[in-house]
Amino acid sequence: MIQIFTTGGTIDKVYFDALSEYQVGPTAVADILRENNVQCDHRVTQLMRKDSLELTDEDRAAIREAIHTSDATRILITHGTDTMVDTARTLGGIAGKTIVLTGALQPATLKHSDAEFNIGFALAAAQALPDGVYVAMNGQIFDPATARKDRKAGKFVDEVS
Amino acid sequence: MIQIFTTGGTIDKVYFDALSEYQVGPTAVADILRENNVQCDHRVTQLMRKDSLELTDEDRAAIREAIHTSDATRILITHGTDTMVDTARTLGGIAGKTIVLTGALQPATLKHSDAEFNIGFALAAAQALPDGVYVAMNGQIFDPATARKDRKAGKFVDEVS
Amino acid sequence: MIQIFTTGGTIDKVYFDALSEYQVGPTAVADILRENNVQCDHRVTQLMRKDSLELTDEDRAAIREAIHTSDATRILITHGTDTMVDTARTLGGIAGKTIVLTGALQPATLKHSDAEFNIGFALAAAQALPDGVYVAMNGQIFDPATARKDRKAGKFVDEVS
Amino acid sequence: MIQIFTTGGTIDKVYFDALSEYQVGPTAVADILRENNVQCDHRVTQLMRKDSLELTDEDRAAIREAIHTSDATRILITHGTDTMVDTARTLGGIAGKTIVLTGALQPATLKHSDAEFNIGFALAAAQALPDGVYVAMNGQIFDPATARKDRKAGKFVDEVS
Repeated sequence: MIQIFTTGGTIDKVYFDALSEYQVGPTAVADILRENNVQCDHRVTQLMRKDSLELTDEDRAAIREAIHTSDATRILITHGTDTMVDTARTLGGIAGKTIVLTGALQPATLKHSDAEFNIGFALAAAQALPDGVYVAMNGQIFDPATARKDRKAGKFVDEVS
Repeated sequence: MIQIFTTGGTIDKVYFDALSEYQVGPTAVADILRENNVQCDHRVTQLMRKDSLELTDEDRAAIREAIHTSDATRILITHGTDTMVDTARTLGGIAGKTIVLTGALQPATLKHSDAEFNIGFALAAAQALPDGVYVAMNGQIFDPATARKDRKAGKFVDEVS
Repeated sequence: MIQIFTTGGTIDKVYFDALSEYQVGPTAVADILRENNVQCDHRVTQLMRKDSLELTDEDRAAIREAIHTSDATRILITHGTDTMVDTARTLGGIAGKTIVLTGALQPATLKHSDAEFNIGFALAAAQALPDGVYVAMNGQIFDPATARKDRKAGKFVDEVS
Repeated sequence: MIQIFTTGGTIDKVYFDALSEYQVGPTAVADILRENNVQCDHRVTQLMRKDSLELTDEDRAAIREAIHTSDATRILITHGTDTMVDTARTLGGIAGKTIVLTGALQPATLKHSDAEFNIGFALAAAQALPDGVYVAMNGQIFDPATARKDRKAGKFVDEVS
């Protein structure tokens, strides 16, 4: 069983005409899994609904606690990209679990979004990788210790390579 | 480096108005990787452009030979779904390589297609799984020995489970 | 009130994996009108579900009869593009009605389809044009007497201009 | 010849990850016309790039002047929806021109947007309607004197009907 925790971020942003702005909405993950006829055993739980720049230490503690408490050993977390690496670094040392973080640089509601691809990519990573914490973005699996979002280039990079 | 071989199938089908029909076109994989800003080292090679029901023993021998000859140890194959499992079964016994087959039940050109999700899913599987041959469909990683396409249900199933 | 008659054609084609082929499905028009929050008074009636190359003289007589019988004076017909002009030419001489034919060169189920634009275009044409029969394609309003589908160029042209 | 003036609004909004926000971008109209293979003679001119709540009296005077100066008698204006009716009311009394305003409640960059349909609808309205000023939204042609955006309901309504 794969436990999917959602925390918000660009992947879940929707446009509200009534406000003329863009906000974090209900998670897009459930729709993506259903529309792609995903058959693996999984459960989707919304932990919070925030832009990742607004996540606090308490939020990160809550994510860690949710992973710790879950009976699942394979965990997928959707998360805003700006602080995804920061959150990943706080999740180290949980024994016996494969924890994969992903998100999107363009909202799932957009015609051209990386949401669907990234969720697919991260779902396989969560099933196939050994225990540990990983960032799965841009078709690559990163070690949070050396990963960084290059905001200007619009992609994640490995500081080492 | 991940070597991606394309063989055709539904994933690459396009609609030709001039023929009022649907045919296997140039591969959709390169576009999907570019549009999702995939950064992992990879190479896309078109081996053939066929509906999988038309694949012959010679075609399967050619696929096997291409894998064998490639300097890559991580191989992703896009393939029609009807005989994907059959092809996978002929690819056993190639030592030191992770071989993942995927495809789509709806063409990548359609609004609602599983192509993007499946390519993302299979790309992570090819990076993370140990040596062996796998079918990656419906968000699940199958052993070709027990996998089967349930055409009526429109999904892949594991005969054992 | 605008009466919309659907007859099939490329606009309504869907892909059936179980058949590995493309067929005329239920009409896409109702979905397009709902998704675009269309508020004008209208009614959608399916007359037939055929590729336009298969339409017979009886079919065309049935279309003419449906227009004649309808209490609406503004009529929109979705139709395959190959014989759209032929059908339009058989609909002349019905007094007091504005009759607009449209369709699509790419199925509405495709990511890149002219279906939505064309339905929008034809719906305004049906509301704004005086009595007569028109072909509304490629953002242009054609007189059926001089219109022709240029299959190679993938567009409708006016033989006169 | 149809002159298309763009002024900004929701229809042209794009998402900038680098800013985690949504802004008015380059106009979507040119892409929509090209992707739908529009063949009618037309010219697209960007007048301004603003949320319609930010349009000033000077902006409206500039729009009026551009229409007045144009050699075209058929004018299509893309505009934010919040003050579309207000602008339309300032454009009365220009003799010999058909002026149609349209826009979108969801950005053209979104998967589910009314942009393509509305541009198609307004383009036919601009070709087929007699001289005057019109608001073309929700598949309806409104008289600006009695039209109103019902923000809560997310659609335009006619105060009279």
